[in-house]
Amino acid sequence: LVNIIDQYGEQAMHFDAAEARLSGRIARLKPSLVREILAAATRPGTISFAGGLPAADLMPPLPIDAVADPSLYQYGATEGEPAYREAVADWIGESGLEVAASQVLPLGGSQQGLDLAAKLLVDAATPILTEAPTYLAALQVFQLFGADIATVSVNAVGPDLDQLEQRLARHKPAAIYLVPTFQNPAGTCYDLAARRAVAALLDRHGTLLIEDDPYRAVSLDLENPPVPISALLRSAPWIYLGSFSKILWPGWRIGYLAARQDLMPHLIVLKQASDLHTQRPAQLAVSRWLRGGGRAEHVERLRAGYRLRRDAMQSALCRHFGDIAEWQVPPGGLFFWVRLRRHQATRQLLAQAMDKGVAFMPGEAFYPGPTPPREHLRLNYSHATPEQMERGVSILSALVRDGA
Amino acid sequence: LVNIIDQYGEQAMHFDAAEARLSGRIARLKPSLVREILAAATRPGTISFAGGLPAADLMPPLPIDAVADPSLYQYGATEGEPAYREAVADWIGESGLEVAASQVLPLGGSQQGLDLAAKLLVDAATPILTEAPTYLAALQVFQLFGADIATVSVNAVGPDLDQLEQRLARHKPAAIYLVPTFQNPAGTCYDLAARRAVAALLDRHGTLLIEDDPYRAVSLDLENPPVPISALLRSAPWIYLGSFSKILWPGWRIGYLAARQDLMPHLIVLKQASDLHTQRPAQLAVSRWLRGGGRAEHVERLRAGYRLRRDAMQSALCRHFGDIAEWQVPPGGLFFWVRLRRHQATRQLLAQAMDKGVAFMPGEAFYPGPTPPREHLRLNYSHATPEQMERGVSILSALVRDGA
Repeated sequence: LVNIIDQYGEQAMHFDAAEARLSGRIARLKPSLVREILAAATRPGTISFAGGLPAADLMPPLPIDAVADPSLYQYGATEGEPAYREAVADWIGESGLEVAASQVLPLGGSQQGLDLAAKLLVDAATPILTEAPTYLAALQVFQLFGADIATVSVNAVGPDLDQLEQRLARHKPAAIYLVPTFQNPAGTCYDLAARRAVAALLDRHGTLLIEDDPYRAVSLDLENPPVPISALLRSAPWIYLGSFSKILWPGWRIGYLAARQDLMPHLIVLKQASDLHTQRPAQLAVSRWLRGGGRAEHVERLRAGYRLRRDAMQSALCRHFGDIAEWQVPPGGLFFWVRLRRHQATRQLLAQAMDKGVAFMPGEAFYPGPTPPREHLRLNYSHATPEQMERGVSILSALVRDGA
Repeated sequence: LVNIIDQYGEQAMHFDAAEARLSGRIARLKPSLVREILAAATRPGTISFAGGLPAADLMPPLPIDAVADPSLYQYGATEGEPAYREAVADWIGESGLEVAASQVLPLGGSQQGLDLAAKLLVDAATPILTEAPTYLAALQVFQLFGADIATVSVNAVGPDLDQLEQRLARHKPAAIYLVPTFQNPAGTCYDLAARRAVAALLDRHGTLLIEDDPYRAVSLDLENPPVPISALLRSAPWIYLGSFSKILWPGWRIGYLAARQDLMPHLIVLKQASDLHTQRPAQLAVSRWLRGGGRAEHVERLRAGYRLRRDAMQSALCRHFGDIAEWQVPPGGLFFWVRLRRHQATRQLLAQAMDKGVAFMPGEAFYPGPTPPREHLRLNYSHATPEQMERGVSILSALVRDGA
């Protein structure tokens, strides 16, 4: 693992078949620190705060009769199953973003939406704006397609608006990628004023918004998070990515995008070229859940379960990190974003922690630049038991104190 | 539809959001003639020879208990389920291509393998070699990523070897894309000598082979088609794409690739960036079928059903096209490739046929160049009933005779 960590950010993967000529994309592929940490974190006995696994035990049972229908054996349409598109349009509508069924495209998880958005928008050196920190797999996809990434910093309730305006004017990004609701990794939830201000700036600059909203249903302190920014735009184009993977059966791979109507023909053809269509049974299973009774109770039960786990992690952190770090209690999503008061390189800390059987994600993975901040840890709270939290956090704390 | 047909091959899709800046990829997106024909072909009363729908009524029942397991709710590994990788490695091995489980990557259908191969290999103007004619969705993907496509012609048992050698030397393609077993659209099955000769040429030039093999199980006249070309290579790199979509539940979207071991790390990271992983339930369902009893009987029943349908189409064609066209009886796969003796533009014929309620795929869709041959029809035989075949082929024949 130390070797893996040393490699990270250094060079593209070595390819020993000199006779094969690979694309420029491959030279931009970094060895994935994240992949390797996640693989290492599955070693028996390891306490993992590294991944973002939702709590499968909190998920409702999958409606097996919905997926058993032999009429689902045959190929389906790229656009998706009408029942799914209609049910998802209504589900999105509950957030305050009104869309027609024809604006919904089923995806094999919302990661695929990032792939389609990159195909739609990114050539070599296309400027893209993201938050710093931001979702690392989004950085991976945009960089894979050759994007030139600029960032805007984010405070507790939204982005630095002056900086945002400056970046929009200077970089003229082809798109801005935002996770405004319980952001991964920082947990930030933009308030309504920040959303309105961002929308106004994007309208003014005509900048396409990619709004990634996978954690909306995992809202722990608010009944309803503020409306998506996509709903507040008057003229700027937008793509809205959604997921069921935090609340329903991520192993079945089912998500969606919605987009401004004029972008849909392109996105549908890109989806067709990618994998023809999203598997039909999962579309039907999710439709059944969305339309069935008990949905509100399922979500409430799920939120209550996550709340318990978050609060257990908060207790453990207060006990062991209260005097050496700072963080916000995340109002939703799956992560604590912890900043060490005395700056330390958390990537080095990770190597020591893994030796002691504790995994986390070092903060620098969530920044695109060559000199990222190095003093953060991202700690997932949805996977470990309360006992593991206590033990794991105490081990991490001791390591930080030893190194300080 | 006439309007659609007229647009085809003309201009990139019109995009009316002038303020959004889309990638160069989108300018290369053609309106998909194929998509539109397939959509039109679903109109009630239309006899469709246009698509490539397999016969769902010949598929074995999906093992529902294999997909119902709640342990499949959670995220899985990008590399795939061990049970699936091992079962598929054995299944590929039955073709004569020996691979380890670690060389197998589950895909959401083999179309996704084309997307990953293009990501691995194709930058703007990267030379790629294909057969002419070839699978149109492969052309679409390679062109989307900017490939510069050269072609090699194919006779009844393999490619023109002199031309192939010339093209390899002159174009130095980054890869060659071949469908050597019951090719779509032409039905060609390379004989063993042709496969050996192609492998030797690719070894000599160090050209990466993308071998697409979705129709191997739909072998109607041979017990076992010849070994994949990938198995005959000594030094050239290769990616082998396989599908279950012709024999098992295409609506569940499950396929695979296998590749030379040194390509796997790149392909796995590209897959991860595309959609994290292939849905787990379909991997388990297919594993169960591959390992279960009755597999040989299922495949034999399926082949017998396809044989009946192919022979019904052959009878209808002999009755109505015997004096005006030529074709080979396809030894496998899902299509007849019919060449009109008196050259006609089959795209214009399509417009007339659609008016009379018959759909087919005009041959020019299967060529990359600006001046494709225009006298072919691709006729699917797996979807229509024998009565529809008789009526549809008779209508087409009358139209050809009227136009001649």
